Amino acid sequence: MLFFNKVTIIGVGLIGGSLARVMKAQKLAGEIHGAGRSRETLEQAIRLGVIDHMGQSSAHAVEHADLVVLAAPVGTFEPIVREIAPHMKKGAILTDVGSVKGMLVRTLEGLLPSGVHFVPGHPIAGREKHGVDAATDTLFQGAKCILTPTDRTDSGALDAVKALWAAAGMNVVLMDPDRHDHIFAAVSHLPHAAAYAMVSTVAEFSSEADNYITFSGAGFRDFTRIAASSPEMWRDVCLLNGKNIVEMIEQYQFSLNRIKKAIKHKDGHRLEALFRAASDLRKGLG
Amino acid sequence: MLFFNKVTIIGVGLIGGSLARVMKAQKLAGEIHGAGRSRETLEQAIRLGVIDHMGQSSAHAVEHADLVVLAAPVGTFEPIVREIAPHMKKGAILTDVGSVKGMLVRTLEGLLPSGVHFVPGHPIAGREKHGVDAATDTLFQGAKCILTPTDRTDSGALDAVKALWAAAGMNVVLMDPDRHDHIFAAVSHLPHAAAYAMVSTVAEFSSEADNYITFSGAGFRDFTRIAASSPEMWRDVCLLNGKNIVEMIEQYQFSLNRIKKAIKHKDGHRLEALFRAASDLRKGLG
Repeated sequence: MLFFNKVTIIGVGLIGGSLARVMKAQKLAGEIHGAGRSRETLEQAIRLGVIDHMGQSSAHAVEHADLVVLAAPVGTFEPIVREIAPHMKKGAILTDVGSVKGMLVRTLEGLLPSGVHFVPGHPIAGREKHGVDAATDTLFQGAKCILTPTDRTDSGALDAVKALWAAAGMNVVLMDPDRHDHIFAAVSHLPHAAAYAMVSTVAEFSSEADNYITFSGAGFRDFTRIAASSPEMWRDVCLLNGKNIVEMIEQYQFSLNRIKKAIKHKDGHRLEALFRAASDLRKGLG
Repeated sequence: MLFFNKVTIIGVGLIGGSLARVMKAQKLAGEIHGAGRSRETLEQAIRLGVIDHMGQSSAHAVEHADLVVLAAPVGTFEPIVREIAPHMKKGAILTDVGSVKGMLVRTLEGLLPSGVHFVPGHPIAGREKHGVDAATDTLFQGAKCILTPTDRTDSGALDAVKALWAAAGMNVVLMDPDRHDHIFAAVSHLPHAAAYAMVSTVAEFSSEADNYITFSGAGFRDFTRIAASSPEMWRDVCLLNGKNIVEMIEQYQFSLNRIKKAIKHKDGHRLEALFRAASDLRKGLG
């Protein structure tokens, strides 16, 4: 049976808080401790009943924990793991919810003492809302969770983390950490960079007297919604997965060039063919 | 008082149908005729009570009409106006809902006999749904409608079209046709081209065995929603507003390059500053 006496969640926001709610709803944890940068957030999480206790520090909070979940911004994982590694008990499982794996996974593995089992993970859960007040035990229902075990991953720990996300209602997929980063550079990191670039582009043409953005419709708002995401988080993702993201930006610039050339040559057939191929693919997504 | 004995709508889809519903709800028209390529759509529009009659042809449908509304795809405006111009009565108003103005407005003006008053328009109405069955008299409520009169526009006709869109609940804005095309190249046409390019980019990395798109989340779906739009329509917009769209694609490529360079140089400060500026702007949009 899946049960952890003590669980510690580092970063009790939407994702960390929702996972805590799943564990409470399904009685998968004896007690849930929270840690993180903001004391206020942790106090709120206790008031909301998302966690039971808060640690003075992450190092303190992970002591005696059977499961530690890294749900803080991905750019903070390395310093957090450096801090908590010496305080984790033998046999404990460490997992994360970060949107970058690859090299980061290898770095974190190298920081852990033997006997602490790291299972890298990435639940693909909606992030329209933020914060622990939006946390719900239904957030993960029906979505994919990618786990990226390596040669060093303990199979018992992997099974436990698989069972945890399955209990949250997720379809668990196992994948190589580097392949994960290539795929997510394409389907997530590139779109975020592109949305930021789009807002900047429109801003270039705007002045206080003549604000182009005020004329935007639902399409522009949809297109650029993700540009409202956390600049710090996306800075870190770009730094941690830079090589893949640069490759995707270059491929994207190639696709834009193809459209630009067809427009310059007034090539209606070519434009329609390019747009139709993309449109047919997109329609399949819903 | 705003009243048209006979109104003819060419292209009875979401926009044309919704305008017809507004005129019916507010008793602004004696009878509403429809015309367009699809007999089936027109029959459906009659069954739904959106229009009263359908014409054998556009030329036939515009006879004796006091107001003719071009609500077909923008790429068909020129041939339609060539067809209907000789059949329009003296004193009639012609208006349109096309998303390109500029040169197209001057072309259409040149095709009309004197005494037929053209008032170019562009209601910025949501287009998530398509077709006359989605038409509703509340579609335009609270959104902007841009009218782009020229030196040749009759002021009485302009006032009538202004009053019509105001009755539909729109905020009417007057603007130079060329300025319209520059603004909408930025806030609408570029995002569509960029969304098509994004879907193509992700598709380049996909095969049947390894479909990257299946790993996309809500962000990618939001970002590329507009790539499901009509390829023919966007082909025509790109051909009719090519010069501005090429300028915007180039500016966009410049913004992407800026991000790419910061990633290559691992310049976290620069990345965060670029993302923060865009994020702050985007948050203002809701």
